[in-house]
Amino acid sequence: MPDTLSSIRHSLAHLLATAALEHDPAAKLSVGPVIDNGFYYDIEFSEGRNPSSEDLKRLEKTMRHLVKKNLDFIKKEVTAEQARAFFSDNPYKLAIIDDLEQAGTAISLYETGNFTDLCVGGHVENTREIDPHSFTLTHLAGAYWRGDEKNPMLTRVYGIAFESKALLEIYLERQEEAKKRDHRKLGKELDLFTFSPLVGAGLPLFTPKGTVLRSELQNALLSISKKYGMQPVTIPHIAKRDLYVTSGHAEKFSDELIKVISHYDEFVMKPVNCPHHTQIYASRPRSYRDLPLRYMESTMQYRDEQPGEIGGLTRVRAITVDDGHIFCRVDQIKEEAKSIANIIKEFYSSLGMYGNHWVSLSVRDLSTPEKYIGDDADWDTAETMLQEISNDLSLDAKRMEGEAALYGPKLDYMFTDSLGRERQLATIQIDFAMPKRFGLSYTGSDGKEETPVMIHRAILGSYERFMAILIEHFAGAFPLWLSPVQIAILPVSEKHRSYAEELLAKFQEIDIRTELHGNDESLGKRIRTAKMQKIPYLLVVGDKEIENRNVSVESRDDGQLGTKSLDETISLLQEKIQSKQ
Amino acid sequence: MPDTLSSIRHSLAHLLATAALEHDPAAKLSVGPVIDNGFYYDIEFSEGRNPSSEDLKRLEKTMRHLVKKNLDFIKKEVTAEQARAFFSDNPYKLAIIDDLEQAGTAISLYETGNFTDLCVGGHVENTREIDPHSFTLTHLAGAYWRGDEKNPMLTRVYGIAFESKALLEIYLERQEEAKKRDHRKLGKELDLFTFSPLVGAGLPLFTPKGTVLRSELQNALLSISKKYGMQPVTIPHIAKRDLYVTSGHAEKFSDELIKVISHYDEFVMKPVNCPHHTQIYASRPRSYRDLPLRYMESTMQYRDEQPGEIGGLTRVRAITVDDGHIFCRVDQIKEEAKSIANIIKEFYSSLGMYGNHWVSLSVRDLSTPEKYIGDDADWDTAETMLQEISNDLSLDAKRMEGEAALYGPKLDYMFTDSLGRERQLATIQIDFAMPKRFGLSYTGSDGKEETPVMIHRAILGSYERFMAILIEHFAGAFPLWLSPVQIAILPVSEKHRSYAEELLAKFQEIDIRTELHGNDESLGKRIRTAKMQKIPYLLVVGDKEIENRNVSVESRDDGQLGTKSLDETISLLQEKIQSKQ
Repeated sequence: MPDTLSSIRHSLAHLLATAALEHDPAAKLSVGPVIDNGFYYDIEFSEGRNPSSEDLKRLEKTMRHLVKKNLDFIKKEVTAEQARAFFSDNPYKLAIIDDLEQAGTAISLYETGNFTDLCVGGHVENTREIDPHSFTLTHLAGAYWRGDEKNPMLTRVYGIAFESKALLEIYLERQEEAKKRDHRKLGKELDLFTFSPLVGAGLPLFTPKGTVLRSELQNALLSISKKYGMQPVTIPHIAKRDLYVTSGHAEKFSDELIKVISHYDEFVMKPVNCPHHTQIYASRPRSYRDLPLRYMESTMQYRDEQPGEIGGLTRVRAITVDDGHIFCRVDQIKEEAKSIANIIKEFYSSLGMYGNHWVSLSVRDLSTPEKYIGDDADWDTAETMLQEISNDLSLDAKRMEGEAALYGPKLDYMFTDSLGRERQLATIQIDFAMPKRFGLSYTGSDGKEETPVMIHRAILGSYERFMAILIEHFAGAFPLWLSPVQIAILPVSEKHRSYAEELLAKFQEIDIRTELHGNDESLGKRIRTAKMQKIPYLLVVGDKEIENRNVSVESRDDGQLGTKSLDETISLLQEKIQSKQ
Repeated sequence: MPDTLSSIRHSLAHLLATAALEHDPAAKLSVGPVIDNGFYYDIEFSEGRNPSSEDLKRLEKTMRHLVKKNLDFIKKEVTAEQARAFFSDNPYKLAIIDDLEQAGTAISLYETGNFTDLCVGGHVENTREIDPHSFTLTHLAGAYWRGDEKNPMLTRVYGIAFESKALLEIYLERQEEAKKRDHRKLGKELDLFTFSPLVGAGLPLFTPKGTVLRSELQNALLSISKKYGMQPVTIPHIAKRDLYVTSGHAEKFSDELIKVISHYDEFVMKPVNCPHHTQIYASRPRSYRDLPLRYMESTMQYRDEQPGEIGGLTRVRAITVDDGHIFCRVDQIKEEAKSIANIIKEFYSSLGMYGNHWVSLSVRDLSTPEKYIGDDADWDTAETMLQEISNDLSLDAKRMEGEAALYGPKLDYMFTDSLGRERQLATIQIDFAMPKRFGLSYTGSDGKEETPVMIHRAILGSYERFMAILIEHFAGAFPLWLSPVQIAILPVSEKHRSYAEELLAKFQEIDIRTELHGNDESLGKRIRTAKMQKIPYLLVVGDKEIENRNVSVESRDDGQLGTKSLDETISLLQEKIQSKQ
């Protein structure tokens, strides 16, 4: 976040406090920090003076009024004693002063008009730097002083703010749009997934339509990946704790590992898949000629998320990972990583998302070699290869020094969705450490035992999170190839039903996902419902269509296409599906 | 087992005891029961007199000699006192006599020649009824008296026996063949699956080749099932215990449920899938017009098997079930069950196994109505419908009265493999109980709330057990459509490699699973290896083939097919794959 924006937001927090004291002169202020997109202030209002939503409008008006006064923010350094004297009737500020004193931090006050706050600074110089229509107060919430429920409950007043009115409006529109596109709302409306209190929080159940989405994504990944020699494998969802002691995950996840109580063995739910895959590699002797071995799998792994952090598909306890691990020689890293970059390109192109992204290349910090595992020369080779891939494929990767994992360098892909939100999705990570931990080996061309390199790769990450992103990105109007229902056939009336059924059977036979929306409601209402369901093609059939053995086609994206013969309609759809338009 | 066979085996146990006493007159006999395929006798031999494998041959010879003596088995009823006097120096027999006396059972002795044993009977009248070459002693093992490790260890001598020499030979050949076909052995040789001590016992890891087998089975099931409107759904592998309290499985499985320790909730690994599927049904209101809803899923469920009972894929802890649940109205049971019967027929036909099977129809015992849940009229309807399906589809189902589950009647399919072993695989079960337990409902045509019926169906059961069965049934030589590798291309020498690579790319492009078996070893050796791998087609390419742009084809099942053009070869294979020949 640029410093100016942060200064604007911080300054507005002070103006909010000023307005709050105007509203309730006996209110006691505590803290008012900058947050994502805005700011808040936690305040103890006097009994009965807690603001209502309507009061927020008035507070906002007061703030706007203050902004227009062109007030300076004036800093005053004070001693702890002076500060205590100033805030003698405010226990919150007194507590903060104690902390600052103990930490040996200089104490300062900031004056704006008649208002003075205890503050370390970071403000505009004068309120004229703030666009009076670039902010708004959004809502109220309860918040315990210092987050501790034993402390008094304060009122938190939230505001958002941007550099200009225009930027605020764009943000608000996107928020409005995001609400409409919320995957939890659309997931329900489009009947994609559900939760059951009997099954438990964070454990989604995917309906037939949601499962079509998952399968289509999985099939697309599989068919692209097979071209590059990836091979599906299958592993269980539990393993002995020993597996993760060897891999290092037992230490890393510690008591976040979910224990599985068997009568005979100590198991845990798998939090990752790589250790299992090493055991397939290790199941027989390997030679340099056998490499690379490229395993892939879509499989659920489990994390013990806190109930409060679980929401929709974004954060779940059962996470279906599109995982992939390549075991190769150092000299094969480039070709393998390049293949993965190509898979990423093809996959995201089929979703129209490739191009709205940037790539980072995380490499070592050469000044702290002790932070990394593996041979120096191998690191050099791997980093050079990743840089070459970035050049060869015009990835234009941003080089991030010191951002490599302790076990190897990596390429990460950040994609921007239709609402401008950026998400890290695909990744290519070189790993020099895990093969060593598991004692993996292959016989080199000279007969010597060598350790393979492992490349971890994810294309879409977790299916659940990816589905949430796609639902919101497309607002539920998925590309044809991905749509759970591709065609709705609507007979005008009951007498047109048998022709509609004949069509239904034809489309189903050639694996085009088709529903017949029968005659229980008026045609108009059925068309509206089908459109709400974001079905890409509606075929209406009545007397004329039966007479001419054709269909009236309406496309979700291209509007009315007029009447078309069945063959024409089929070729149109099949071509679009196959080319993933 | 017919009584005669049991009598023969029991009588041979006595002859074994007689022979053992000849070998070691001081040996103390304990018990000698009939078991599957034969018999054994547990004996305490004198110090240093334990028989060796060679002694077994001598014992067998003695037994054969006794058989030929045409000895009678003569029963003598005695009092406990008389029996004790007879066996006064045998603590085992004395203990048995105590038990018999306490149970109030009549005590009898059986005499054969000079030998007398404590015995309740079940013998041939005279050893002339036994074919002297219809039995053999197979092996020795240690066995604690009464299975308690605190008791002395006895020597168990095992024998097998049949009605005739011919039947014994068939059995021995099948045993020999079964050893060769053991799926654990072939699974390793064909690189289908592996186990890792770090992952844990009973938790198979499927290699790329094993995963092809699984996927092909799954795709075959899916493509047949879709024609009948089944829809895949997706569920997690854990659930709150509450789910199974409601379903009744918590009580049924009790502490066999595997607990999952989260910091926030009490979960268990799912032992079955039906309760999860009910929650998808329950996720929105349903009307009579929405039914049937047909969910299917291939998903892993978990059982806490004892380490001692785990073996290969036959008994595992992570069980991938091909599960399916149909929610329908009572009047729809027949059509739905018929669809499943058709799916079973098509699936097993594609494996050449349909026909080698029989079907059982389990119905109520009308004299004990209290043993069943659900409406009497509904039971009548369901049983009648299943019987009609059996008639309509010529299933010739054997009616088993009293064999129905408490929740409904069912059809079970028993298939016989190529070694004559019978296995229950497919099942169609009507369930009136579970929908009630979960309070599932739909709005009937009259607006009233009704409870749907649930049909549980399995086509192949568990993928792991089914793979074990298929591997042994086919001795690893799977039908073409199922083979992990369908073609091996063998260039005669290095200079033919680039043509071989060209062919490889062509076959891979059209999704025929092909491997190039390069030039590191002699052609002869590579051909032998490919045959060991049971690869259905070997394509050898040398100078002539390159010149004529064709291939020399050898079929695993049909032998040498001569040279064929690439197009011919492709059509041949594609047709066989598509038609699942």
